Amino acid sequence: MDKHAQQQLESFRNLARKIKSYHEAIGLLHWDLRTGAPKKGVPTRSETLGLLSTEAFKLQTSVEMKSYLDTLTTPAVLEQLEDTDRRQVEDCKKEYDRSQSVPPEKVQAYTVLTAKSETAWEDAKHNSDFAGFSPYLTDIVKLKQEFIDYWGVKDTRYDTLLDMYEPELTVEKVDAVFARLKARLVPLQEKINASANKPNTEFLNQLFDKDQQEKFSLFILGQMGYDFEAGRLDESVHPFATGLNPGDVRITTNYLQDDVTSAVFSSLHEGGHALYEQNIDDSLAGTLLAEGTSMGIHESQSRLWENMIGRSRPFWTRYYSDLQQHFPQLSEVELEDFYRAINRVESSLIRIEADELTYNLHIIIRYEIEKMLFNEGLEVKDLPETWNAKYKEYLGIVPPNDGLGVLQDVHWSGGDFGYFASYSLGNMYAAQILHTLRKEMPAFDAFIAEGNLIPIKEWLTDKIYRYGKSRTPSELILAVTGEELNPDYLADYLEAKYAEIYKL
Amino acid sequence: MDKHAQQQLESFRNLARKIKSYHEAIGLLHWDLRTGAPKKGVPTRSETLGLLSTEAFKLQTSVEMKSYLDTLTTPAVLEQLEDTDRRQVEDCKKEYDRSQSVPPEKVQAYTVLTAKSETAWEDAKHNSDFAGFSPYLTDIVKLKQEFIDYWGVKDTRYDTLLDMYEPELTVEKVDAVFARLKARLVPLQEKINASANKPNTEFLNQLFDKDQQEKFSLFILGQMGYDFEAGRLDESVHPFATGLNPGDVRITTNYLQDDVTSAVFSSLHEGGHALYEQNIDDSLAGTLLAEGTSMGIHESQSRLWENMIGRSRPFWTRYYSDLQQHFPQLSEVELEDFYRAINRVESSLIRIEADELTYNLHIIIRYEIEKMLFNEGLEVKDLPETWNAKYKEYLGIVPPNDGLGVLQDVHWSGGDFGYFASYSLGNMYAAQILHTLRKEMPAFDAFIAEGNLIPIKEWLTDKIYRYGKSRTPSELILAVTGEELNPDYLADYLEAKYAEIYKL
Repeated sequence: MDKHAQQQLESFRNLARKIKSYHEAIGLLHWDLRTGAPKKGVPTRSETLGLLSTEAFKLQTSVEMKSYLDTLTTPAVLEQLEDTDRRQVEDCKKEYDRSQSVPPEKVQAYTVLTAKSETAWEDAKHNSDFAGFSPYLTDIVKLKQEFIDYWGVKDTRYDTLLDMYEPELTVEKVDAVFARLKARLVPLQEKINASANKPNTEFLNQLFDKDQQEKFSLFILGQMGYDFEAGRLDESVHPFATGLNPGDVRITTNYLQDDVTSAVFSSLHEGGHALYEQNIDDSLAGTLLAEGTSMGIHESQSRLWENMIGRSRPFWTRYYSDLQQHFPQLSEVELEDFYRAINRVESSLIRIEADELTYNLHIIIRYEIEKMLFNEGLEVKDLPETWNAKYKEYLGIVPPNDGLGVLQDVHWSGGDFGYFASYSLGNMYAAQILHTLRKEMPAFDAFIAEGNLIPIKEWLTDKIYRYGKSRTPSELILAVTGEELNPDYLADYLEAKYAEIYKL
Repeated sequence: MDKHAQQQLESFRNLARKIKSYHEAIGLLHWDLRTGAPKKGVPTRSETLGLLSTEAFKLQTSVEMKSYLDTLTTPAVLEQLEDTDRRQVEDCKKEYDRSQSVPPEKVQAYTVLTAKSETAWEDAKHNSDFAGFSPYLTDIVKLKQEFIDYWGVKDTRYDTLLDMYEPELTVEKVDAVFARLKARLVPLQEKINASANKPNTEFLNQLFDKDQQEKFSLFILGQMGYDFEAGRLDESVHPFATGLNPGDVRITTNYLQDDVTSAVFSSLHEGGHALYEQNIDDSLAGTLLAEGTSMGIHESQSRLWENMIGRSRPFWTRYYSDLQQHFPQLSEVELEDFYRAINRVESSLIRIEADELTYNLHIIIRYEIEKMLFNEGLEVKDLPETWNAKYKEYLGIVPPNDGLGVLQDVHWSGGDFGYFASYSLGNMYAAQILHTLRKEMPAFDAFIAEGNLIPIKEWLTDKIYRYGKSRTPSELILAVTGEELNPDYLADYLEAKYAEIYKL
């Protein structure tokens, strides 16, 4: 590489590091808002967040960035770059091209619109008033359609949106995997509904001490290998994980007095996200690659820990007595009854409360509706009717009102179309990874039953975590499992699990 | 004002608001570091802090800033500006001129040097190794002397440093007030030492439940009118207050298991700082004037609440039974004994643990030494000897080692010369303000004895808090009390207080 290119590379790395620093500050400002910032400081805080986000965005689309990218993406230079540099350059180039094409006044209009829309959605959800929210959503979809034109239409218009959250994902791929998944999950769900062997969940309806919930959450996180010197556990209304830097990956949970499982599984879930971010290789520190490679892969790690490990029989064989010690009200409940209770399958209206199986049906419904909105001319005004019909078809139930139906999720009010699919991708990736993990680690179940979770964390670190964003989701899943995304693993896993639980 | 000037004013206001936003983010990053950020994230966090601080500094010294200031400081424009705008312009101009004059490589060298020096100081303090720290301090003083040349020498070289923390303060003024103060405090201290009526403090040496300490702190803060919707109380090793914005003013305290007074008085102290920042007028929000006007005035508010209210007899007449309810181990201790115990005067080596009276002598010692360093050619190598001589002279004790002596404070390792004086100024301002307050509010003591602290907070808001930085310290003290800084009020207050306690 010539001296000029070398200098441009250095400057590029510094600029990326600077953007990363802004992201860290923005991450902390958000974390703080959700974990206990005083109420009266919120308006000014929001301005500060807006300013820093704008600054980070400006850097990503700056003339300096363009100049570095121009040099570094010339084929002669690009081929001489080391992997990390090349991947970071490609990532910034993609971001630059995409952002650059949208007129600033459109970005501004979008920011104002979504801010208003989120408030309007809150009211509309509360009052089940779809008509009140509909004008905002109509404008958002319209603006998003314009953005798709600026960003560039892939195979279909909706492909452009999918790619924002899961690089290289296409409608063609999702259609295929969801079709296969649906073909197996819907009948499974019907069989379960017809089964006479329903788990009893009554004993879960008791009061559970909050301090004990916190203690048990901390205990389980420790067992997973969550590093408390590189993170902390706090409370927030909606649990989340946030990686400010690889040495500072925070998680939150929410302790419900009348539900002990909520905090336990949310800690396992957010703990899974956190293990990913904590174990990114040091060589990526300070680059924009020091984060999970996609929403879907990230979700695979939370789901793997929450469901495939945390809702498994070996896990509770080991940890149930600990749980009973924390919560004596469970002392008379048999392990087997507890295991079956936390794995009850039941059609329900609210996605975020759904079980492991029906969850995917909630996602497929949203995916199909989004595709109709962007590719097939569905109008916003017809959303409630479409929504209810799909809930009837896939889950056999119809929401009594729009608050519990089409208005339940925040995503659309913020313009996040193309995002939902990641949740089910996460489940599919997780099952596929689990399949390979079991093959390569025959003692997998035995390790869990012994409470020896660290080898599992280490395997995942070696195969997935350490790469951060330096491998794309498809490269990663291919390298780990030897094949592309394959929904059969999830279907196999769910069929086997529930056949046993429901004696199908 | 013509259209161009009007536009420049708008742009100037936006730039100031932007700088303020950076300050908010920097404030939160610092707060978080001290209240529980995970250890392994600290190195990256420090880089992020460095970056944002640099960005804020760049904005303050940017060509845009220069262009706005050039327009807005022309006499014809300046005289048309409203007070807030004019004061903000003047403030930024002062900062711009001062910063602009120092070559960037000197600033860089200073940053690196003080970062290293703070670490070296920690080791040196721990090992009482002045020789190990001396080279750093020598370089810092040398560089600071160069800065003084760039910033411009006032009456004396040390004046330039004083002005950084307390605008318009001069050696001439400080010399005069400290001389008068010393002339009255040293004999008072001697009389107290000679008194046979020493308070008994033994009952303070017990264990005090941490949760109860927190509850009592929250109770007292509520009594003071601290707004918990615009702030929060956390723990940190060294208590502090930080105003991120007027709606988000946080304080921290430290609960010592074997000392109940530490958390109580630190809550009153930091609560005093916080009341100041929480009650700045809304019209200053988003400007660089939305903060305390100087270190000294800020400290006057913490001292007023901590000592003049919090260590007063009326205060404990009202609140002692509450304290006893929180800490039953005090139930047999008489109010009078408690009052005398928390007001014991005793020469000691450590400034931050000193009583209300000797505290000022600790400060005078540091002030005199700093003046010798910058104005009178004292060499760094001679610091320990000078230090010990002054402790002998003013407090009658000599440190057994440099860790408990010349190395005890962090300030010099960070290059903070000119800062210490503010602490005693705070005490003097506080006593002078108290004098006026008592005159204007004859029921002052009665209000406290009733637990009716809000009228006091409101008086202080009306006279001091609401103005933020829009009045200089001297304007403020003149407006509130009708005269310039006068050390006699502090001496009067201390003499009266201790004559009674020690039956002098």
